[in-house]
Amino acid sequence: MQEHTVRAYAGELRRLRELVARMGGLAERQVADSVTALVRQDAELATEVIGRDAEIDALEREIEDFCIRLLALRQPAGADLRLVVAALKIIHAIERIGDYARNAAKRSIVLAQQPRLGSLNGFQRMARLVQENLKGAMDALVNEDAARADEVWAADKPVDEVYNGIFREMLTFMMEDPRNITAATHLLFVAKNLERIGDHATNIAETVHYAVQGQALTEERPKGDNSTYAVVRQQD
Amino acid sequence: MQEHTVRAYAGELRRLRELVARMGGLAERQVADSVTALVRQDAELATEVIGRDAEIDALEREIEDFCIRLLALRQPAGADLRLVVAALKIIHAIERIGDYARNAAKRSIVLAQQPRLGSLNGFQRMARLVQENLKGAMDALVNEDAARADEVWAADKPVDEVYNGIFREMLTFMMEDPRNITAATHLLFVAKNLERIGDHATNIAETVHYAVQGQALTEERPKGDNSTYAVVRQQD
Repeated sequence: MQEHTVRAYAGELRRLRELVARMGGLAERQVADSVTALVRQDAELATEVIGRDAEIDALEREIEDFCIRLLALRQPAGADLRLVVAALKIIHAIERIGDYARNAAKRSIVLAQQPRLGSLNGFQRMARLVQENLKGAMDALVNEDAARADEVWAADKPVDEVYNGIFREMLTFMMEDPRNITAATHLLFVAKNLERIGDHATNIAETVHYAVQGQALTEERPKGDNSTYAVVRQQD
Repeated sequence: MQEHTVRAYAGELRRLRELVARMGGLAERQVADSVTALVRQDAELATEVIGRDAEIDALEREIEDFCIRLLALRQPAGADLRLVVAALKIIHAIERIGDYARNAAKRSIVLAQQPRLGSLNGFQRMARLVQENLKGAMDALVNEDAARADEVWAADKPVDEVYNGIFREMLTFMMEDPRNITAATHLLFVAKNLERIGDHATNIAETVHYAVQGQALTEERPKGDNSTYAVVRQQD
Protein backbone atom coordinates (compact mmCIF):
# COMPACT_ATOMS: atom_id res chain seq x y z
CA MET A 1 0.00 0.00 0.00
CA GLN A 2 1.12 3.57 -0.53
CA GLU A 3 1.96 5.58 2.57
CA HIS A 4 -1.11 7.80 2.43
CA THR A 5 -3.31 4.72 2.03
CA VAL A 6 -1.70 3.11 5.07
CA ARG A 7 -2.32 6.29 7.09
CA ALA A 8 -5.94 6.50 5.91
CA TYR A 9 -6.48 2.83 6.79
CA ALA A 10 -5.00 3.24 10.29
CA GLY A 11 -7.29 6.27 10.73
CA GLU A 12 -10.31 4.19 9.71
CA LEU A 13 -9.51 1.49 12.25
CA ARG A 14 -9.11 4.14 14.95
CA ARG A 15 -12.40 5.69 13.87
CA LEU A 16 -14.06 2.27 14.10
CA ARG A 17 -12.92 1.87 17.71
CA GLU A 18 -14.12 5.37 18.52
CA LEU A 19 -17.53 4.85 16.91
CA VAL A 20 -18.05 1.66 18.91
CA ALA A 21 -16.97 3.44 22.10
CA ARG A 22 -19.40 6.28 21.33
CA MET A 23 -22.20 3.75 20.92
CA GLY A 24 -21.15 2.20 24.24
CA GLY A 25 -21.25 5.65 25.84
CA LEU A 26 -24.81 6.22 24.62
CA ALA A 27 -25.84 2.85 26.08
CA GLU A 28 -24.19 3.70 29.42
CA ARG A 29 -26.21 6.89 29.60
CA GLN A 30 -29.40 5.02 28.76
CA VAL A 31 -28.78 2.54 31.57
CA ALA A 32 -28.05 5.36 34.05
CA ASP A 33 -31.10 7.40 33.03
CA SER A 34 -33.49 4.46 33.01
CA VAL A 35 -32.58 3.65 36.61
CA THR A 36 -32.69 7.31 37.66
CA ALA A 37 -36.19 7.47 36.14
CA LEU A 38 -37.10 4.35 38.12
CA VAL A 39 -35.78 5.59 41.44
CA ARG A 40 -37.20 9.12 41.10
CA GLN A 41 -40.48 7.83 39.61
CA ASP A 42 -39.80 10.25 36.75
CA ALA A 43 -41.98 9.21 33.81
CA GLU A 44 -40.74 12.12 31.70
CA LEU A 45 -37.11 11.00 31.88
CA ALA A 46 -38.23 7.42 31.17
CA THR A 47 -40.00 8.65 28.02
CA GLU A 48 -36.79 10.41 26.91
CA VAL A 49 -34.84 7.17 27.36
CA ILE A 50 -37.36 5.29 25.22
CA GLY A 51 -37.09 7.93 22.49
CA ARG A 52 -33.29 7.94 22.50
CA ASP A 53 -33.03 4.20 21.80
CA ALA A 54 -33.39 4.97 18.09
CA GLU A 55 -30.02 6.80 18.19
CA ILE A 56 -28.30 3.63 19.36
CA ASP A 57 -30.00 1.59 16.64
CA ALA A 58 -29.00 4.15 13.99
CA LEU A 59 -25.40 4.11 15.18
CA GLU A 60 -25.38 0.31 15.04
CA ARG A 61 -26.42 0.42 11.38
CA GLU A 62 -23.81 3.12 10.65
CA ILE A 63 -21.02 1.08 12.26
CA GLU A 64 -22.13 -2.11 10.53
CA ASP A 65 -22.02 -0.34 7.16
CA PHE A 66 -18.61 1.09 8.05
CA CYS A 67 -17.33 -2.43 8.86
CA ILE A 68 -18.67 -3.80 5.58
CA ARG A 69 -16.96 -0.99 3.63
CA LEU A 70 -13.72 -1.63 5.53
CA LEU A 71 -13.89 -5.35 4.75
CA ALA A 72 -14.68 -4.71 1.09
CA LEU A 73 -12.15 -1.93 0.44
CA ARG A 74 -9.24 -2.67 2.79
CA GLN A 75 -9.50 -6.47 3.00
CA PRO A 76 -8.02 -6.43 6.50
CA ALA A 77 -6.00 -9.39 7.80
CA GLY A 78 -4.67 -10.56 11.16
CA ALA A 79 -5.31 -8.24 14.09
CA ASP A 80 -7.18 -5.72 11.91
CA LEU A 81 -9.61 -8.37 10.70
CA ARG A 82 -10.14 -9.53 14.28
CA LEU A 83 -10.93 -5.95 15.28
CA VAL A 84 -13.59 -5.59 12.57
CA VAL A 85 -15.21 -8.93 13.45
CA ALA A 86 -15.06 -8.03 17.15
CA ALA A 87 -16.65 -4.63 16.42
CA LEU A 88 -19.57 -6.34 14.65
CA LYS A 89 -20.07 -8.59 17.66
CA ILE A 90 -19.77 -5.76 20.18
CA ILE A 91 -22.26 -3.45 18.48
CA HIS A 92 -24.91 -6.17 18.56
CA ALA A 93 -24.31 -6.58 22.28
CA ILE A 94 -24.56 -2.81 22.81
CA GLU A 95 -27.78 -2.75 20.81
CA ARG A 96 -29.19 -5.39 23.16
CA ILE A 97 -28.07 -3.32 26.16
CA GLY A 98 -29.96 -0.38 24.67
CA ASP A 99 -33.07 -2.55 24.32
CA TYR A 100 -32.84 -3.65 27.95
CA ALA A 101 -32.49 -0.02 29.10
CA ARG A 102 -35.50 0.96 26.98
CA ASN A 103 -37.50 -1.89 28.47
CA ALA A 104 -36.50 -0.81 32.00
CA ALA A 105 -37.61 2.73 31.12
CA LYS A 106 -41.00 1.46 29.91
CA ARG A 107 -41.50 -0.35 33.19
CA SER A 108 -40.46 2.80 35.10
CA ILE A 109 -43.43 4.57 33.58
CA VAL A 110 -45.82 1.99 35.03
CA LEU A 111 -43.94 1.98 38.32
CA ALA A 112 -44.16 5.77 38.63
CA GLN A 113 -47.90 5.26 39.26
CA GLN A 114 -47.47 2.45 41.76
CA PRO A 115 -46.65 2.63 45.47
CA ARG A 116 -42.90 2.58 45.94
CA LEU A 117 -41.41 -0.68 47.16
CA GLY A 118 -38.39 -0.23 49.40
CA SER A 119 -35.42 2.03 48.78
CA LEU A 120 -34.48 0.71 45.32
CA ASN A 121 -30.85 1.20 46.40
CA GLY A 122 -30.00 -2.18 44.92
CA PHE A 123 -31.08 -0.97 41.48
CA GLN A 124 -28.81 2.06 41.69
CA ARG A 125 -25.97 -0.13 42.83
CA MET A 126 -26.52 -2.58 39.95
CA ALA A 127 -26.75 0.27 37.43
CA ARG A 128 -23.49 1.76 38.70
CA LEU A 129 -21.69 -1.59 38.52
CA VAL A 130 -22.84 -2.46 35.00
CA GLN A 131 -22.08 1.09 33.78
CA GLU A 132 -18.55 0.84 35.15
CA ASN A 133 -18.10 -2.50 33.44
CA LEU A 134 -19.41 -1.19 30.15
CA LYS A 135 -17.15 1.85 30.39
CA GLY A 136 -14.18 -0.38 31.28
CA ALA A 137 -14.85 -2.57 28.25
CA MET A 138 -15.00 0.50 25.96
CA ASP A 139 -11.76 1.91 27.43
CA ALA A 140 -10.11 -1.46 26.89
CA LEU A 141 -11.24 -1.40 23.26
CA VAL A 142 -10.08 2.15 22.51
CA ASN A 143 -6.72 1.65 24.27
CA GLU A 144 -6.28 -1.94 23.03
CA ASP A 145 -5.78 -2.89 26.65
CA ALA A 146 -6.34 -6.63 27.19
CA ALA A 147 -5.55 -6.41 30.92
CA ARG A 148 -8.36 -3.86 31.40
CA ALA A 149 -10.71 -6.14 29.45
CA ASP A 150 -9.80 -9.03 31.75
CA GLU A 151 -10.61 -6.93 34.83
CA VAL A 152 -14.10 -6.24 33.48
CA TRP A 153 -14.54 -9.87 32.53
CA ALA A 154 -13.87 -10.90 36.14
CA ALA A 155 -16.08 -8.19 37.69
CA ASP A 156 -19.58 -9.53 36.96
CA LYS A 157 -19.98 -11.40 40.26
CA PRO A 158 -20.98 -8.36 42.39
CA VAL A 159 -23.70 -7.54 39.83
CA ASP A 160 -25.13 -11.02 40.22
CA GLU A 161 -24.97 -10.79 44.00
CA VAL A 162 -26.97 -7.55 44.08
CA TYR A 163 -29.44 -9.15 41.67
CA ASN A 164 -29.92 -12.14 43.97
CA GLY A 165 -30.62 -9.78 46.87
CA ILE A 166 -33.25 -7.89 44.86
CA PHE A 167 -34.85 -11.16 43.73
CA ARG A 168 -35.37 -12.29 47.32
CA GLU A 169 -36.51 -8.83 48.45
CA MET A 170 -39.15 -8.64 45.72
CA LEU A 171 -40.52 -12.10 46.43
CA THR A 172 -40.80 -11.14 50.08
CA PHE A 173 -42.73 -7.96 49.18
CA MET A 174 -45.14 -10.05 47.11
CA MET A 175 -45.72 -12.53 49.91
CA GLU A 176 -46.28 -9.81 52.49
CA ASP A 177 -49.05 -8.11 50.54
CA PRO A 178 -50.68 -9.11 47.25
CA ARG A 179 -51.08 -5.42 46.40
CA ASN A 180 -47.30 -5.36 45.91
CA ILE A 181 -47.38 -8.05 43.22
CA THR A 182 -47.71 -5.85 40.13
CA ALA A 183 -44.95 -3.43 41.16
CA ALA A 184 -42.65 -6.19 42.44
CA THR A 185 -43.05 -8.16 39.20
CA HIS A 186 -42.08 -5.17 37.06
CA LEU A 187 -39.15 -4.47 39.40
CA LEU A 188 -38.03 -8.10 39.09
CA PHE A 189 -37.94 -7.71 35.32
CA VAL A 190 -35.99 -4.44 35.60
CA ALA A 191 -33.46 -6.16 37.87
CA LYS A 192 -33.22 -9.01 35.37
CA ASN A 193 -32.63 -6.47 32.57
CA LEU A 194 -29.76 -4.96 34.57
CA GLU A 195 -28.32 -8.38 35.24
CA ARG A 196 -28.40 -9.18 31.52
CA ILE A 197 -26.80 -5.83 30.72
CA GLY A 198 -24.02 -6.89 33.09
CA ASP A 199 -23.68 -10.19 31.22
CA HIS A 200 -23.41 -8.34 27.93
CA ALA A 201 -20.72 -6.01 29.35
CA THR A 202 -18.79 -9.12 30.37
CA ASN A 203 -19.23 -10.66 26.92
CA ILE A 204 -18.01 -7.42 25.33
CA ALA A 205 -14.91 -7.50 27.54
CA GLU A 206 -14.30 -11.07 26.41
CA THR A 207 -14.58 -9.99 22.77
CA VAL A 208 -12.18 -7.07 23.34
CA HIS A 209 -9.68 -9.47 24.90
CA TYR A 210 -9.94 -11.68 21.82
CA ALA A 211 -9.57 -8.71 19.45
CA VAL A 212 -6.46 -7.44 21.24
CA GLN A 213 -4.76 -10.75 22.06
CA GLY A 214 -5.93 -12.96 19.23
CA GLN A 215 -6.89 -15.67 21.68
CA ALA A 216 -10.18 -16.35 23.40
CA LEU A 217 -10.45 -16.33 27.17
CA THR A 218 -10.86 -19.95 28.17
CA GLU A 219 -11.00 -19.87 31.96
CA GLU A 220 -14.46 -20.34 33.48
CA ARG A 221 -15.94 -16.97 34.38
CA PRO A 222 -16.85 -16.39 38.06
CA LYS A 223 -20.64 -16.51 38.31
CA GLY A 224 -22.65 -15.25 41.27
CA ASP A 225 -26.23 -15.54 40.00
CA ASN A 226 -28.03 -18.49 41.51
CA SER A 227 -31.50 -16.93 41.59
CA THR A 228 -32.55 -19.21 38.75
CA TYR A 229 -32.57 -21.98 41.31
CA ALA A 230 -34.01 -19.86 44.09
CA VAL A 231 -36.99 -20.92 46.14
CA VAL A 232 -38.27 -18.37 48.63
CA ARG A 233 -40.42 -19.84 51.37
CA GLN A 234 -43.68 -18.19 52.14
CA GLN A 235 -43.54 -15.98 55.21
CA ASP A 236 -45.93 -17.24 57.84
CA MET B 1 -10.00 -16.90 -9.90
CA GLN B 2 -9.41 -20.32 -11.41
CA GLU B 3 -12.42 -22.54 -11.93
CA HIS B 4 -11.62 -24.98 -9.14
CA THR B 5 -11.07 -22.04 -6.75
CA VAL B 6 -14.46 -20.61 -7.70
CA ARG B 7 -16.08 -23.99 -7.08
CA ALA B 8 -14.30 -24.38 -3.73
CA TYR B 9 -15.37 -20.88 -2.71
CA ALA B 10 -19.04 -21.50 -3.64
CA GLY B 11 -18.87 -24.71 -1.62
CA GLU B 12 -17.52 -22.81 1.38
CA LEU B 13 -20.37 -20.30 1.25
CA ARG B 14 -22.89 -23.15 1.04
CA ARG B 15 -21.16 -24.86 3.95
CA LEU B 16 -21.40 -21.61 5.93
CA ARG B 17 -25.16 -21.46 5.40
CA GLU B 18 -25.50 -25.11 6.38
CA LEU B 19 -23.41 -24.71 9.53
CA VAL B 20 -25.54 -21.77 10.65
CA ALA B 21 -28.72 -23.74 9.92
CA ARG B 22 -27.35 -26.69 11.91
CA MET B 23 -26.69 -24.36 14.85
CA GLY B 24 -30.24 -23.05 14.48
CA GLY B 25 -31.55 -26.62 14.50
CA LEU B 26 -29.71 -27.36 17.75
CA ALA B 27 -31.25 -24.24 19.31
CA GLU B 28 -34.74 -25.25 18.12
CA ARG B 29 -34.35 -28.61 19.82
CA GLN B 30 -33.15 -26.93 23.01
CA VAL B 31 -36.21 -24.69 23.06
CA ALA B 32 -38.56 -27.64 22.47
CA ASP B 33 -36.91 -29.82 25.12
CA SER B 34 -36.74 -27.08 27.74
CA VAL B 35 -40.49 -26.55 27.47
CA THR B 36 -41.20 -30.29 27.40
CA ALA B 37 -39.13 -30.57 30.59
CA LEU B 38 -41.17 -27.75 32.09
CA VAL B 39 -44.56 -29.17 31.19
CA ARG B 40 -43.72 -32.76 32.20
CA GLN B 41 -41.82 -31.60 35.30
CA ASP B 42 -38.94 -33.68 33.99
CA ALA B 43 -35.77 -32.53 35.77
CA GLU B 44 -33.67 -35.14 33.98
CA LEU B 45 -34.52 -33.75 30.53
CA ALA B 46 -33.91 -30.22 31.85
CA THR B 47 -30.43 -31.30 32.99
CA GLU B 48 -29.73 -32.69 29.50
CA VAL B 49 -30.73 -29.36 27.95
CA ILE B 50 -28.36 -27.49 30.27
CA GLY B 51 -25.50 -29.83 29.35
CA ARG B 52 -26.13 -29.54 25.61
CA ASP B 53 -25.78 -25.74 25.58
CA ALA B 54 -22.01 -26.18 25.30
CA GLU B 55 -22.51 -27.76 21.84
CA ILE B 56 -24.17 -24.57 20.62
CA ASP B 57 -21.39 -22.43 22.05
CA ALA B 58 -18.75 -24.64 20.42
CA LEU B 59 -20.50 -24.44 17.07
CA GLU B 60 -20.66 -20.64 17.39
CA ARG B 61 -16.87 -20.51 17.83
CA GLU B 62 -16.37 -22.90 14.91
CA ILE B 63 -18.55 -20.80 12.60
CA GLU B 64 -16.93 -17.57 13.73
CA ASP B 65 -13.50 -19.01 12.92
CA PHE B 66 -14.81 -20.23 9.58
CA CYS B 67 -16.09 -16.71 8.77
CA ILE B 68 -12.75 -15.14 9.71
CA ARG B 69 -10.89 -17.62 7.49
CA LEU B 70 -13.32 -16.91 4.63
CA LEU B 71 -12.82 -13.15 5.03
CA ALA B 72 -9.04 -13.50 5.17
CA LEU B 73 -8.57 -16.00 2.33
CA ARG B 74 -11.42 -15.25 -0.09
CA GLN B 75 -11.90 -11.52 0.54
CA PRO B 76 -15.58 -11.78 -0.38
CA ALA B 77 -17.41 -8.81 -1.87
CA GLY B 78 -21.04 -7.85 -2.55
CA ALA B 79 -23.63 -10.49 -1.70
CA ASP B 80 -20.98 -12.94 -0.44
CA LEU B 81 -19.61 -10.38 1.99
CA ARG B 82 -23.14 -9.63 3.17
CA LEU B 83 -23.71 -13.33 3.78
CA VAL B 84 -20.59 -13.64 5.95
CA VAL B 85 -21.45 -10.53 7.99
CA ALA B 86 -25.05 -11.77 8.34
CA ALA B 87 -23.82 -15.19 9.47
CA LEU B 88 -21.73 -13.56 12.22
CA LYS B 89 -24.79 -11.65 13.39
CA ILE B 90 -27.10 -14.67 13.22
CA ILE B 91 -24.83 -17.01 15.19
CA HIS B 92 -24.70 -14.53 18.08
CA ALA B 93 -28.50 -14.40 18.09
CA ILE B 94 -28.69 -18.21 18.07
CA GLU B 95 -26.19 -18.35 20.91
CA ARG B 96 -28.49 -16.04 22.92
CA ILE B 97 -31.46 -18.30 22.08
CA GLY B 98 -29.46 -21.23 23.44
CA ASP B 99 -28.79 -19.28 26.65
CA TYR B 100 -32.49 -18.53 27.08
CA ALA B 101 -33.39 -22.20 26.58
CA ARG B 102 -30.74 -23.22 29.12
CA ASN B 103 -32.11 -20.68 31.57
CA ALA B 104 -35.65 -22.00 31.03
CA ALA B 105 -34.33 -25.53 31.66
CA LYS B 106 -32.70 -24.42 34.92
CA ARG B 107 -35.99 -22.96 36.08
CA SER B 108 -37.78 -26.18 35.06
CA ILE B 109 -35.67 -28.04 37.59
CA VAL B 110 -36.93 -25.80 40.39
CA LEU B 111 -40.46 -25.95 39.05
CA ALA B 112 -40.43 -29.77 38.97
CA GLN B 113 -40.49 -29.62 42.78
CA GLN B 114 -43.24 -27.02 43.01
CA PRO B 115 -47.01 -27.48 42.75
CA ARG B 116 -48.10 -27.18 39.13
CA LEU B 117 -49.78 -23.92 38.16
CA GLY B 118 -52.44 -24.34 35.50
CA SER B 119 -52.13 -26.31 32.29
CA LEU B 120 -48.98 -24.60 30.95
CA ASN B 121 -50.60 -24.90 27.50
CA GLY B 122 -49.52 -21.33 26.75
CA PHE B 123 -45.88 -22.31 27.18
CA GLN B 124 -46.21 -25.15 24.69
CA ARG B 125 -47.95 -22.84 22.26
CA MET B 126 -45.23 -20.20 22.59
CA ALA B 127 -42.49 -22.81 22.18
CA ARG B 128 -44.13 -24.16 19.03
CA LEU B 129 -44.52 -20.68 17.55
CA VAL B 130 -40.93 -19.57 18.21
CA GLN B 131 -39.57 -22.90 16.96
CA GLU B 132 -41.51 -22.52 13.72
CA ASN B 133 -40.16 -19.00 13.31
CA LEU B 134 -36.61 -20.10 13.98
CA LYS B 135 -36.98 -22.96 11.51
CA GLY B 136 -38.49 -20.59 8.94
CA ALA B 137 -35.57 -18.19 9.33
CA MET B 138 -33.06 -21.03 8.85
CA ASP B 139 -34.91 -22.33 5.77
CA ALA B 140 -34.91 -18.79 4.36
CA LEU B 141 -31.15 -18.61 4.92
CA VAL B 142 -30.32 -21.97 3.33
CA ASN B 143 -32.61 -21.36 0.33
CA GLU B 144 -31.76 -17.63 0.05
CA ASP B 145 -35.49 -17.01 0.19
CA ALA B 146 -36.24 -13.39 1.18
CA ALA B 147 -40.02 -13.90 0.97
CA ARG B 148 -39.82 -16.70 3.56
CA ALA B 149 -37.71 -14.43 5.78
CA ASP B 150 -40.35 -11.71 5.50
CA GLU B 151 -43.08 -14.14 6.58
CA VAL B 152 -41.15 -14.99 9.73
CA TRP B 153 -40.42 -11.33 10.37
CA ALA B 154 -44.17 -10.59 10.35
CA ALA B 155 -45.14 -13.60 12.51
CA ASP B 156 -43.96 -12.48 15.95
CA LYS B 157 -47.29 -10.97 17.02
CA PRO B 158 -48.99 -14.26 18.06
CA VAL B 159 -45.96 -15.04 20.26
CA ASP B 160 -46.40 -11.74 22.07
CA GLU B 161 -50.12 -12.32 22.47
CA VAL B 162 -49.62 -15.69 24.15
CA TYR B 163 -46.97 -14.09 26.35
CA ASN B 164 -49.40 -11.36 27.45
CA GLY B 165 -51.94 -14.02 28.37
CA ILE B 166 -49.40 -15.92 30.47
CA PHE B 167 -48.29 -12.71 32.17
CA ARG B 168 -51.83 -11.96 33.33
CA GLU B 169 -52.49 -15.58 34.31
CA MET B 170 -49.36 -15.75 36.48
CA LEU B 171 -50.11 -12.47 38.26
CA THR B 172 -53.58 -13.79 38.99
CA PHE B 173 -52.14 -17.03 40.46
CA MET B 174 -49.88 -14.94 42.70
CA MET B 175 -52.73 -12.79 43.92
CA GLU B 176 -54.96 -15.77 44.63
CA ASP B 177 -52.46 -17.48 46.89
CA PRO B 178 -49.04 -16.31 48.07
CA ARG B 179 -47.85 -19.92 47.98
CA ASN B 180 -47.97 -19.64 44.19
CA ILE B 181 -45.52 -16.73 44.12
CA THR B 182 -42.25 -18.65 43.76
CA ALA B 183 -43.51 -20.92 40.98
CA ALA B 184 -45.37 -18.13 39.18
CA THR B 185 -42.26 -15.90 39.25
CA HIS B 186 -40.08 -18.60 37.69
CA LEU B 187 -42.80 -19.28 35.10
CA LEU B 188 -42.97 -15.55 34.28
CA PHE B 189 -39.23 -15.59 33.58
CA VAL B 190 -39.56 -18.70 31.42
CA ALA B 191 -42.33 -16.99 29.43
CA LYS B 192 -40.14 -13.91 29.07
CA ASN B 193 -37.29 -16.13 27.82
CA LEU B 194 -39.59 -17.60 25.18
CA GLU B 195 -40.76 -14.14 24.18
CA ARG B 196 -37.15 -13.00 23.75
CA ILE B 197 -36.36 -16.14 21.76
CA GLY B 198 -39.21 -15.08 19.48
CA ASP B 199 -37.68 -11.60 19.17
CA HIS B 200 -34.34 -13.12 18.22
CA ALA B 201 -35.99 -15.34 15.58
CA THR B 202 -37.54 -12.20 14.12
CA ASN B 203 -34.20 -10.39 14.16
CA ILE B 204 -32.58 -13.35 12.43
CA ALA B 205 -35.25 -13.23 9.72
CA GLU B 206 -34.52 -9.53 9.29
CA THR B 207 -30.82 -10.30 8.89
CA VAL B 208 -31.54 -13.06 6.37
CA HIS B 209 -33.66 -10.62 4.36
CA TYR B 210 -30.76 -8.16 4.35
CA ALA B 211 -28.26 -10.86 3.34
CA VAL B 212 -30.41 -12.04 0.43
CA GLN B 213 -31.78 -8.70 -0.80
CA GLY B 214 -28.97 -6.31 0.12
CA GLN B 215 -31.45 -3.93 1.69
CA ALA B 216 -32.68 -3.70 5.24
CA LEU B 217 -36.34 -4.10 6.09
CA THR B 218 -37.56 -0.64 6.96
CA GLU B 219 -41.27 -1.08 7.69
CA GLU B 220 -42.23 -1.03 11.36
CA ARG B 221 -42.61 -4.57 12.63
CA PRO B 222 -46.06 -5.56 14.02
CA LYS B 223 -45.71 -5.76 17.80
CA GLY B 224 -48.17 -7.44 20.12
CA ASP B 225 -46.36 -7.33 23.48
CA ASN B 226 -47.81 -4.69 25.76
CA SER B 227 -47.21 -6.52 29.05
CA THR B 228 -44.41 -4.07 29.83
CA TYR B 229 -47.13 -1.55 30.51
CA ALA B 230 -49.49 -4.02 32.17
CA VAL B 231 -51.08 -3.38 35.51
CA VAL B 232 -53.12 -6.23 36.93
CA ARG B 233 -55.61 -5.18 39.59
CA GLN B 234 -55.71 -7.16 42.75
CA GLN B 235 -58.62 -9.59 42.89
CA ASP B 236 -60.95 -8.72 45.75
